Amino acid sequence: MLGTASAMPVATRNQSAQALQVHGRLFLMDAGEGVQTQMVRYRVPMAKLEAVFISHVHGDHVYGLFGLLSTFGMGGRMVPLHVYGPANLRPFINFFLSYNDWLPYEIVFHPVNTRFPEVIFETKSVTVTAFPLLHGIETYGYIFREKEPQWNVRKECIAEYGLTLTEIGTLKRGEDVVREDGTVIPLAEAAYKPFVPRSYAYVSDTAVFPGEAEVLKDVTVLYHEATFLQEHEDKAAARFHSTTLQAARVALDAGVSRLLIGHYSSRNLDQRLYEAECRTIFPETYAASDGDEFEI
Amino acid sequence: MLGTASAMPVATRNQSAQALQVHGRLFLMDAGEGVQTQMVRYRVPMAKLEAVFISHVHGDHVYGLFGLLSTFGMGGRMVPLHVYGPANLRPFINFFLSYNDWLPYEIVFHPVNTRFPEVIFETKSVTVTAFPLLHGIETYGYIFREKEPQWNVRKECIAEYGLTLTEIGTLKRGEDVVREDGTVIPLAEAAYKPFVPRSYAYVSDTAVFPGEAEVLKDVTVLYHEATFLQEHEDKAAARFHSTTLQAARVALDAGVSRLLIGHYSSRNLDQRLYEAECRTIFPETYAASDGDEFEI
Repeated sequence: MLGTASAMPVATRNQSAQALQVHGRLFLMDAGEGVQTQMVRYRVPMAKLEAVFISHVHGDHVYGLFGLLSTFGMGGRMVPLHVYGPANLRPFINFFLSYNDWLPYEIVFHPVNTRFPEVIFETKSVTVTAFPLLHGIETYGYIFREKEPQWNVRKECIAEYGLTLTEIGTLKRGEDVVREDGTVIPLAEAAYKPFVPRSYAYVSDTAVFPGEAEVLKDVTVLYHEATFLQEHEDKAAARFHSTTLQAARVALDAGVSRLLIGHYSSRNLDQRLYEAECRTIFPETYAASDGDEFEI
Repeated sequence: MLGTASAMPVATRNQSAQALQVHGRLFLMDAGEGVQTQMVRYRVPMAKLEAVFISHVHGDHVYGLFGLLSTFGMGGRMVPLHVYGPANLRPFINFFLSYNDWLPYEIVFHPVNTRFPEVIFETKSVTVTAFPLLHGIETYGYIFREKEPQWNVRKECIAEYGLTLTEIGTLKRGEDVVREDGTVIPLAEAAYKPFVPRSYAYVSDTAVFPGEAEVLKDVTVLYHEATFLQEHEDKAAARFHSTTLQAARVALDAGVSRLLIGHYSSRNLDQRLYEAECRTIFPETYAASDGDEFEI
């Protein structure tokens, strides 16, 4: 968690940004002002960053991009950096490039433009789905989903059954081994899945909207903004933000395992109040602070 | 001191920015990323800010401008904000405005363009002089100089001599009172100057250059970047920055009362080393940290 404040600057929290490590690969969600300093402060291995996913172009989610892009240049980065976000993010990158034509690396901008959940990025082990949020301007949420892992063959079974390479390949594909003599070596006995695929959703900024829980169905860990305490429900609606109870209700309806909240209004920075309100509906809620690490 | 780091992000110092209060009026020099958060953190009364003076458009001196301008808007600022800086700063403001046409206040940009020291701004009590630095791109230093104060008439003398309003006016203009009967009431006895005019120079970023000490002659307090320890004199020259000893030599030659240094290279953040090197030439050197306040 690199930034858990909302738009007004406060002394104790940075503006929106999160780093996500997936099987040793590093992604950034949003880039609030100061994100590069936060990455240094919390020892996020900045140079490994592959892609940035920007939710929307409000300043508190994007003004840190300039410094980050600049520092990569000074640091001699050679590998391209991929930036995903709404089309109106492109002028930010063009503006930056107009002052930085010396960059040793390429910035590859991928405009996101979808009305329905859509896979916009994929690696060997993860997919990223973008979907529209409800925030007055074009805004996207992102869901990172681990792919189903391959079956791993149990080492002890290789010796016990004298498995051939062909038979190991059969198990890895998820099939039982059936030998010519009719012997069956069941997949479930000789192989295992190293993990159950996990998922993480980043949902900031948004008012709650019909179908939101459906999009987030069964996500393992959901980060959902909860800008306002419940008493300010009117303000949340007027500004296209969520309250604590609204975020908790989404988590409950979506059946997620855990809810993380942040983007607290500067009018009240005591995260325990936000957490307590959410827990009345969804006990597995955790209010995030800058520097917090969560294992999924 | 709102930011004493140089361009590479570090956990313990913000990038370049300083606030200066002069007779209750507030000015900002440079706006490194995160400056708005620093102003909140160190209780600088942000809303009172009248003018920003930008040295040059390298990111570590200007990327904090966006968040600051945005926050003023959200806070409902009505009074204009004046921004001074080289002409190539204008696209920053235009870019910002292209995303923020709702601002309730006016941003008045004053391009600085001078080859010689020139007064670019003036209030009742202070002048601001801009002069070119040597940094590879167009860069300016700024000197704030208090104007000579009016003479204040001593209260006890008003009664003692039965001073008339006309006579008080004479003293305030800096003249002795000569009465019709030949009595002289000497200025030096009946009036005093409330302070000796002070001055502050902000010099970042620059290599030292011929005539620099002349421009800074008799400044009360000089802030001069000292990016490199003396052993990195070659790097300083190559990157148009100053070393400790170079900054100290300028302070000595200019005859300033005090030298403040900052903009330390990220390769060595122990400010005591920079300070110690400077003091071998100029003992009244003080290495600045974020949050430091200096009275001039």
